Parts: sequence; C-alpha cells; structure tokens
Amino acid sequence: MTTPSRPALTLAEVAALVRGQLRGDGGVVIAGVNTIRDAGDRELTWTVGEPHTRKLATSRAAAVIGPTDLPATPMPAVLVSDVEAAIATVLERFLPDRWAPSLGVHATALVDSTAQLGGGVAIGPYVVIGPRSVIGAGTVIHAGAFIGADCEIGEQSTLWPNVFIADRCRLGRRNIVWSNAVIGRDGFGFIAREGRHRRIPQIGTVVLEDDVEVGACSCIDRAKCGETRIGAGSKIDNLVQIAHNVRTGRGCILVGQAGVAGSVHLGHGVVLGGQVGVTDGVEIGDGTMLTAQSGVTRSLSSHLVAEGKPAQERHRALREQAAARRLPELLDEIRELSKRVRRLEIATDHSASD
Amino acid sequence: MTTPSRPALTLAEVAALVRGQLRGDGGVVIAGVNTIRDAGDRELTWTVGEPHTRKLATSRAAAVIGPTDLPATPMPAVLVSDVEAAIATVLERFLPDRWAPSLGVHATALVDSTAQLGGGVAIGPYVVIGPRSVIGAGTVIHAGAFIGADCEIGEQSTLWPNVFIADRCRLGRRNIVWSNAVIGRDGFGFIAREGRHRRIPQIGTVVLEDDVEVGACSCIDRAKCGETRIGAGSKIDNLVQIAHNVRTGRGCILVGQAGVAGSVHLGHGVVLGGQVGVTDGVEIGDGTMLTAQSGVTRSLSSHLVAEGKPAQERHRALREQAAARRLPELLDEIRELSKRVRRLEIATDHSASD
Amino acid sequence: MTTPSRPALTLAEVAALVRGQLRGDGGVVIAGVNTIRDAGDRELTWTVGEPHTRKLATSRAAAVIGPTDLPATPMPAVLVSDVEAAIATVLERFLPDRWAPSLGVHATALVDSTAQLGGGVAIGPYVVIGPRSVIGAGTVIHAGAFIGADCEIGEQSTLWPNVFIADRCRLGRRNIVWSNAVIGRDGFGFIAREGRHRRIPQIGTVVLEDDVEVGACSCIDRAKCGETRIGAGSKIDNLVQIAHNVRTGRGCILVGQAGVAGSVHLGHGVVLGGQVGVTDGVEIGDGTMLTAQSGVTRSLSSHLVAEGKPAQERHRALREQAAARRLPELLDEIRELSKRVRRLEIATDHSASD
Repeated sequence: MTTPSRPALTLAEVAALVRGQLRGDGGVVIAGVNTIRDAGDRELTWTVGEPHTRKLATSRAAAVIGPTDLPATPMPAVLVSDVEAAIATVLERFLPDRWAPSLGVHATALVDSTAQLGGGVAIGPYVVIGPRSVIGAGTVIHAGAFIGADCEIGEQSTLWPNVFIADRCRLGRRNIVWSNAVIGRDGFGFIAREGRHRRIPQIGTVVLEDDVEVGACSCIDRAKCGETRIGAGSKIDNLVQIAHNVRTGRGCILVGQAGVAGSVHLGHGVVLGGQVGVTDGVEIGDGTMLTAQSGVTRSLSSHLVAEGKPAQERHRALREQAAARRLPELLDEIRELSKRVRRLEIATDHSASD
Repeated sequence: MTTPSRPALTLAEVAALVRGQLRGDGGVVIAGVNTIRDAGDRELTWTVGEPHTRKLATSRAAAVIGPTDLPATPMPAVLVSDVEAAIATVLERFLPDRWAPSLGVHATALVDSTAQLGGGVAIGPYVVIGPRSVIGAGTVIHAGAFIGADCEIGEQSTLWPNVFIADRCRLGRRNIVWSNAVIGRDGFGFIAREGRHRRIPQIGTVVLEDDVEVGACSCIDRAKCGETRIGAGSKIDNLVQIAHNVRTGRGCILVGQAGVAGSVHLGHGVVLGGQVGVTDGVEIGDGTMLTAQSGVTRSLSSHLVAEGKPAQERHRALREQAAARRLPELLDEIRELSKRVRRLEIATDHSASD
Repeated sequence: MTTPSRPALTLAEVAALVRGQLRGDGGVVIAGVNTIRDAGDRELTWTVGEPHTRKLATSRAAAVIGPTDLPATPMPAVLVSDVEAAIATVLERFLPDRWAPSLGVHATALVDSTAQLGGGVAIGPYVVIGPRSVIGAGTVIHAGAFIGADCEIGEQSTLWPNVFIADRCRLGRRNIVWSNAVIGRDGFGFIAREGRHRRIPQIGTVVLEDDVEVGACSCIDRAKCGETRIGAGSKIDNLVQIAHNVRTGRGCILVGQAGVAGSVHLGHGVVLGGQVGVTDGVEIGDGTMLTAQSGVTRSLSSHLVAEGKPAQERHRALREQAAARRLPELLDEIRELSKRVRRLEIATDHSASD
C-alpha cells in the first residue's frame, strides 16, 4: 500500500521528543511504531515490564521504549518514567493526517441562512445544518452529517459522516462524534392506556460538555424535560445506549455496547465495562467501576469495583462465582453427607434400642 | 440559549387542558414543564405520590399536577385522576415544533419516476427513493434517508435522517423510524459446506404494521422467505436487533439493545427489557415481560414476569439469586457440618467398639 | 403488492436445478418458496426431517424438497442428499433482482480525482470517495457511502447506503458491508493522567480479507498500531462491536450484538453467539463456539462449545446451571441435615454421658 506516512525520526530524536534517556545507538531510523510481535526493523516498540520485556529477545523492532529500570535489551532503548504517555506522544508524531473537508462550506452543504458558522469551520459535502444553529470556530463536519435547528456545536469539534444531531442539542468544545451516532432522539417513554402505547412527548434536550467523545452508532436520547447531560471529558465507545434524563459526571468511560436506562446518575469518573447495563433511576458513585456485562439494579456507592448481576462489590462477586463453580460437587457432597447422617441415625437408633 | 419555545399558559388554562381541578392561584404563569428537582419558578412539575410528593417542599416549581388525593402543597396544584396522562398532555402542549423538510420534494432528492408520492409529503434533501415505491400521504422523510425499490411507506409516517429501507419492505401508517435504523437487511443465514459459509438467499421481506416506532440504529432483517413482521403499535428502542422471520404481536415493547434471534414469535404486548436476548425459534406468550439482560432459551407462556438466564418465572429466579448470594457461607456451613458428622462417626464408632 | 418476481418453474425444473429425484407430478408450477406453515399453493417448501415432516399434512405447499428417505407426502416431492443446500439453490433462483446504482459514477457522487475505479463499478448518488482510494472492478457502492483517503475496496464488493470506511482501511474481494456499518473508527484507547483521559493516537488500520460480510450498524475499530484483521470468509451480523487490534481467523461467525474487546485473537471458524462478550487480550482456539450471551474472560482452547460467564465448557456450565436451579431446595436440605446432626449430637452426648 502507498499510504502517505509521516517522515522518519532518529532514535535520538525520539528520545528528545519524549524527554527520555537514550541507551545505545541514537542514529537508528524510526519510521513507525508497532507491537513487539509485529514491529519491523524500522519500527519502534514498547514495554511496560514483564512478561513483555522478555519477548523483546525475538522482536525485530529497531528500538524500544521502556521504564527506567529496563534490563539490557537486544536493541537500543529509550528509558522514561511513563512509558504509556511516551508511546502516546510518539504515536501522535506518526499519526497520518486525516482526510477532512476543506475549510469553508462545501458547495453541496445546505446551511440554513440563519445558522451561524465560526471562523475556520470546515463543512463537508451533503451536510445539512438547520435554522439558528451555531457552529463553533475550527469545527469540522464531515459529509452527510445532519444538524437540526437551534443546536450548538462547540469550537474545535469533529463530527464524522452521517452523524445526526437533533434539534436543540448542545455540544461543548473539542467534542468528537463518530459516524452514525444519534444525539437527541426522543426518549423512549410511553404510557399504556386502553391497550395502546401513547407517546410521552420529550421536550428536553441533550447536553454534551467539553471534551466529550461519542463512538460510532451510539445513541444519546433527549430528556423528557430538562436535559440528558454527559459530563466534561467523558468518553463513550461504539454502540452505547444512553436513555433520557441520564446525567454523568466528568471523565466517565462507557465501553462498547454499554446501556444506561432512564434517569440514571453516574458520578465523576465512573467506568462502565463493555455490555454493562444499568437500570433506570439508579445512582452510581464517583470512581466506581463496573466490569464487563455487569447488570446494575441498585444504586452503588463510590470507588467500588463491582461485578455480576445484580452487580455487587467485586471480591464478593468473585467468591460467589467460585462457590457456584463448586456447586455440582457440592450436591454430591451433600448427598454423601446425608447418607452418612442416615447411617449414624440408624446406628444411634440401634444403640438407643440396645 | 434562544430556543424558540411555545407560548406560556396560566395554571387555569393548564387545568382546563387536562380537565383537572384547580387548587390555588389559577393565574400563575406556566412556561414549561420540568422534574421536581429541576423545575424553575415558571415551570410546572408533577407527582404521582410518595416519595415524590414530600420533595415538593424544596421544589421551586410554580405549580404541580398530582392525584386527586394530593395533600396540601407549597405551590398551587391541578388535581387529576391520571397524572401520567395529564402530564403527557401538557408536555405535548409545550413540545417545540420540530424542524422538518418543507412540503414537497427537495430539489436534491432523487425520487424515481415510477415512485408514487401521496399528498402532502415532505421529502428532504439527498433522499433517495427507488422504482415503484409508494409513499403515503402526509409522510415526512428527512435528509439522506434511502428507500429501495417496491417499498410501501404508510401515511403520516416519519423517517429520520439516514434511515435505510431495503427493497420490498412495507411500513404501515403513522410509523416513526429513527436515524440510521436499517430495515430489510438480508437475514443472517449461512450454510457451512466444505469449510465455507454459503449465503442462504433471503427472498422474504419486512412488514411493520401501523403505529410502529423503530429506534435509532436498530436493525430489522428481512425474512428468508415470507415476512419478518412487527405488530401494530409495537415500540422498538435504539440499537435493537430483530433477526429474520421474527413475528411480534400488537403493542410489544423492545427496550434498548434487546436482541431477538431468527423465527422467534412474540405474542401481543410482550415486553423485552434492555439487553434481553431471545434465542432462535422460541415463542413467548401474550403479555409476558422479561426483565433487563435476561436470556430466553426456551418458550415462555403468557402473562409471566420472567428473569435471568435461562429466563424463568421471576419469583423463582429471585429465590435462586438470593440462594446464590448465600453460597460462600453455605460452603463454610457444609464444611462445618461435615466435621461434626465425622466427630459423630468417630464417637459412634468408639461407642460401637466399646 | 406488485413486487416484480422471478418467473415460475415446474417442479421438474426444480428437480433438475438441484439435481434431485422427482417424486410425483413434475408439472406442478412453483412460483416461490416458503415455510411449511406459510407456503401457498404455488410455493415450494422443505423439510429436513421430523418434527417438520409431519406438519406437511396440513401445509398448502405445492411441493416439498426433502431428504432421500422422506416418507410419502401429500404433495409431490424432490428428494436430495443435502436439503439445506438444495433449498439455498432454489432461493437463489427466486431471489428478486436488487435495485442498485447504475454502472458508472452517479452525477452527484464525489470521487476524488486521484482515486482509481476498476471496470464495471457502480457508484451511487451522494457517495464520497477520498484521495488515492482504489475501488476494485465490479464493486457496487450505494448512496451516501463514505470512503476516506487511501482505502482499498476489493473487486465484486457491495457497500450499502451510508457505510463509513475511514482512511487507509483495506477490504478484500467480494466483501459485503451493510448500511451504517463503521469501519476504521479510532480504537477506544485513552490513558488517564492528572484526572483527564488523554487519547492514545491510533495509527493502525483495518483489514477485511476476501469474502467478509459486515452487518448493519456494526463497528470495526482501527488498530492502535498494525492492523485489526478479519479473516477470509468471516461473517459478522448486525450491531457487532470489534475493538482495535482484534484478529480473527478464517470463516468466523459473529452473531448480532456480539462484542470483542481490544487485542482479542480468534482462531479459524470461531462462532460467537448473539450478545457474547470477549474481554481484551483473550485468545480463542479454532472452531470454538460460544453460546449466546456468554462472557469470555479467559483464553479458551480449540473445538470447545462453551457457555456462561465466565465461559467454560458447555457440559460443565449446564451442570452448574442445573445445580443452581436446585439451590433454594438445597438450602432447605442443609438446614434439615443440620438439625438431624444436632439431634444426633445430643443423642450421642447423652449416650456418652450415660
């Protein structure tokens, strides 16, 4: 493939970039980054410690970034106090430019005459922007995205193709919304009367604070009244469902296919693992983390690691799981115990009747 | 924000609108609706009873809608026999107009010359409608929606941006299909022969009866042969998967991220909670309700509340869950019991050998 | 409805098509295919054996395809050694033509001048194709699909409306990607530093080998570095999430709403049932099959059938499930046993103190 790539660095330049300590030949050419297993002889790799470090013996990598106590390695190294941060910096350096709409408004974009566009926006082809919506400076909107009426999109945000933002939703600065995400659908509220489901009108809206990222095909419903609100710096993966009137604190992480029912409140820094479900009205305290596929049916306090369905403190959940795994043998044990008791009863009975 | 809002009402007008009984100052101005917690001093709130009613003491709400036996409240009230229905009526009154395509066909929409459009349709920009498809009167199709060939879309329906309706699918009257929903993908059927998966052609179609709503990013696959059919008045939330040849009765509710495998039959009024999974070929009787994350692996009769995996009658499932929570302590008990039996055996043995 | 349908066959022609043995009137007209229950009197149905065969007694079907040992049936039959393959062949014959973009590039499609289009491509309206991307011969790209820069789409592939393929992704030959699928979103990787989530740049890509199918609204994320790779002949259903750096072997099947976390490796022919979740870094051996809703938290060897969370060998999982269902009664048994032991202890004590 002829992917345009970023120019190569020397290892000495890498060391300078990450403010690390060079060990070995600083002239080695680094043209990219890859895993220990897949790195080629012009690529940098990394290790945070064992068991990865020992695999360097069979790696073709040109050089490695590792912790300051990294043992001797077959290839030159850059030693740093924070390997993950350093490798993120190097990845940033090698990130290819993305193809994006040109500055300005594409000839095929339909921007309502009452919409306001900030400086340096890039609006791609076939984009639709409704009346009175405001697009912040430097924001990029890719092809086919649809923004309704009376929306606000903050500065320096990126909306990928075919995103749908319904009327009156507000996105903060530096938001990233991935393809086919849907923000502001009417909350799923009905009342059953005379055998029919009557729609409860949803007059509220959705607010994403600054630095929020929403994954592809994720859905955030508008509130029945008031707001559905995602806290600043929260990151939402693909195919996540967030129902009406949910509120999250700052810096939450919702992993792929997690689902949050109506009126749930998440504190700051809550982490929902993949496919986690949270039932309506529940509150989860700051910093609590749910492992994948957990089901939260009751409110949880802060700074827990919780698991299972119903979700509970993880050590307890693991003890129960371990006990459950012993269940079939336990049945045998109890059957055996019952027989022994029966034998004792007979013996005691005999002894009593002696 | 300068969202255009609907004109305010007096509380007396609200009482008239919902046919309720006014208690207190009918001249209070109501400019919107909000929750007890978030309502401002020009907003109406509501309560269906405790524990909500007691929270009115600290609410800033201008007035409250409550049941006919509502105790005295700090703000004027409107008393009604059906609070939920009344508040839905008020929400309807305050629902802002939605921004929608203008009547007629947008200049950029590509409508095949053999398609038929009913009176009063509104076809937005960049919409594609295939040959021989029929769009009912009063239907609104938002930007970027795609309707294949030989489709029927009933009257007064709304298709939101970027919906995909494949060839030959039929939607009833007053359907609402949210953004990025996909109706009529080929059912996921393959036969494995000689180590390869051969596609089973899916010649059937999808039928949505009247008053069906399909959430954002939900997928309803076409039948292998015959129809996948969703019963009248059924409501489907976001990110729901409905496989080929599924049939549902009238008035079913499928909550977010539920998944229904091939050839499942749901009766009338079945409710699937969030993230519920139903395996292929299963039947679920009328009115049966599955709690969130349940896994249905066997057919279920009607009017059950079922839970767990495999899903079973809820009281039974809860008893098993409660027992499972006692498992770790049970293991200790059994270990202890075993020791006591051992001691008894030794004692009895001694006594026998005395 | 006036769906254009394929011309009818005689049953003798059906027998010739599937190389089966005709039993009864070969002149019967076959205008379609349907299930035993729904087939009309001009439609063919099929059975692979009981309990289906006995239902033929009440079927209106014009004829049936069945196995070579099919008992006498009320309607003429075609006997074959492989019923499923035969019916797939007949379904293929009756599959209506799909409505697709015309050959060439639609006037509204925006194809970058540096993109390369193979012979016989059909590029629909409002499609966007970025710089240097290469579209193979015979490939069909439906309305509104978006292909970024430096992509490769193999020959004879089909991309349905509103698909998003991000920069640098590579699809093999005969790929099918359904509507609103998202390929190449940045992997969901962050590092938490000083209370903020910093994005880890994702410089890798996505590779789909030949004959891969991706369902509607499914998401396959690009690798942090290197590739996320889906093996040849793998089939992915709707709403499936595949995270960065996942690799699958050939011929895998991922059923609806399955989710695979980062750096998971699946062997050849792995089957993930609906809503299955696989945690990051796990390896699953060739031919292993996970039943629906299972949660894989540890690596699994090859050719297992596994179930539950944590997923384990199915027979073992079923034994544990069966034991769990007995738990409430078990608690009663143990309570009873404990009483009996207590009585024995008292008796023995008395006897000892005699």
